[in-house]
Amino acid sequence: MAKGEKRTFVPGRVGVVGLGLMGGSFAKAAHQGGQEVYAWNRTRSTLELAMIDTIDGELTEEVVGTCELIILAGYPQVSVDWMRDMEGLISPGALVIDTVGVKRVICDKCFEIAAQHDWTFVGCHPMAGTQYSGYAHSRANMFHGAPMVVVAPDDADDFERADVLERLKALLAPCGFGSFTLASADFHDQQIAYTSQLAHVVSNAYVKSPAAQMHKGFSAGSYKDLTRVARLNAPMWTELFLDNADYLSREIGTIIDNLKAYKDALDSHDAQRLEELLAEGDRLKKEAEKR
Amino acid sequence: MAKGEKRTFVPGRVGVVGLGLMGGSFAKAAHQGGQEVYAWNRTRSTLELAMIDTIDGELTEEVVGTCELIILAGYPQVSVDWMRDMEGLISPGALVIDTVGVKRVICDKCFEIAAQHDWTFVGCHPMAGTQYSGYAHSRANMFHGAPMVVVAPDDADDFERADVLERLKALLAPCGFGSFTLASADFHDQQIAYTSQLAHVVSNAYVKSPAAQMHKGFSAGSYKDLTRVARLNAPMWTELFLDNADYLSREIGTIIDNLKAYKDALDSHDAQRLEELLAEGDRLKKEAEKR
Repeated sequence: MAKGEKRTFVPGRVGVVGLGLMGGSFAKAAHQGGQEVYAWNRTRSTLELAMIDTIDGELTEEVVGTCELIILAGYPQVSVDWMRDMEGLISPGALVIDTVGVKRVICDKCFEIAAQHDWTFVGCHPMAGTQYSGYAHSRANMFHGAPMVVVAPDDADDFERADVLERLKALLAPCGFGSFTLASADFHDQQIAYTSQLAHVVSNAYVKSPAAQMHKGFSAGSYKDLTRVARLNAPMWTELFLDNADYLSREIGTIIDNLKAYKDALDSHDAQRLEELLAEGDRLKKEAEKR
Repeated sequence: MAKGEKRTFVPGRVGVVGLGLMGGSFAKAAHQGGQEVYAWNRTRSTLELAMIDTIDGELTEEVVGTCELIILAGYPQVSVDWMRDMEGLISPGALVIDTVGVKRVICDKCFEIAAQHDWTFVGCHPMAGTQYSGYAHSRANMFHGAPMVVVAPDDADDFERADVLERLKALLAPCGFGSFTLASADFHDQQIAYTSQLAHVVSNAYVKSPAAQMHKGFSAGSYKDLTRVARLNAPMWTELFLDNADYLSREIGTIIDNLKAYKDALDSHDAQRLEELLAEGDRLKKEAEKR
């Protein structure tokens, strides 16, 4: 096939762009589920490692047009750049998703690109991961039971949204996601600033007390839980945080204000106020779990 | 035996004061380990429940003098009050420990009381627990593998400290603690302000964002970990926090200052500074785990 020549996708064939923790896990799950998988990766050695037992070959320009599902699993900018480079090669009717942890910046650009073609882009954010990164930590069961957030094109009607969701569920069946939630990019970014990004910031800040270096013998589950995600890929999270700076900054401000209230109650030895603050948190956590 | 008459303890017999999460777990472990267990509890129904399959009887004034080990497992003030009421009834040579999460206020008072008698008080803090409280959640394996912090009397020499530690290890063998760490009350309180108390404050503050009530479908492990200990027994923690207000306030101040640094970097879109802050936390967490 000559470069740039289009053809129809092979049903079920998957292309994965970027074999990190997320891309590697998608590739392994798809392979285990019997799908054909082709991948692109910046570092050649990882690609060669994956060729041994996970992927069927390299996601070259010639192969792009044969994929029914293309998963952009690199850093935000790398994902957008790859899509822009390949936009003309993707098969009509194909589904392209990303896996980036912020959705406004990605979806704005990708919906615009996709609108010029007869294939569909859908923003995705799998709510799974570990504190480790890289292909070596990826695994086929990474998404098992995890929620998947899906951002459909702004101009899609309810019927189209339901349709694309069903197709996505079928193509990603080997991943075993626990739920699929449709959301706007804006609502996703607000929620993720809180549930994921703030958690990483707080955990990362938590270990900066001098006491952290003397915790052995004095710590149990609560310390372990609070500091688990202090380990992180700094360049990647920097990009994700800056792409969601408004909402993340607001959440950090909220928790700082709330923490100050406990500090004030302690400093003034105000037992009643302190107990009210603690009981309020206890109640809100209980309510949050009920919803 | 007439009230107030002293006699020598029955070797291995355990008295537990307060059948909450901690006291209940000590009682269950001791019972499973073949020790005789007597208990006191403010609420009679819990005591009666424990009598069915865990304790051998009520820790009455008559029984106090027959215990080799007495575990004070109530709220701080309740523990000190019980010891003051019973100080004359405790057997010579007996070992009395508490399980309270702060050590300066408890140890100051209890060392002073014990110094008037020929039995020994040792401050203890088992580094274990759950976000739930009460006898219903207690279990025999609660302390399995957990660290135990031990505060020996200030005037004890190294030989006496080692001796009391060995005896404590033997008497608590059924609990299966993973380690015993000798510390001063002051060092304990500094560390615990960070590893446990701050974790509860941060977690409790974390759920106060409005986003907490919409987290379903948008959250994964990091949210779950950060908010696990948001559920807490507000009156109990209020007392523990106020008894350690100086050190806890300092730790809250530290994390507020550190959180502000990320917020400032975000607000000024300073990528280099943000990445430095994140890399610093990643490095400090790695170092803390190596120690």
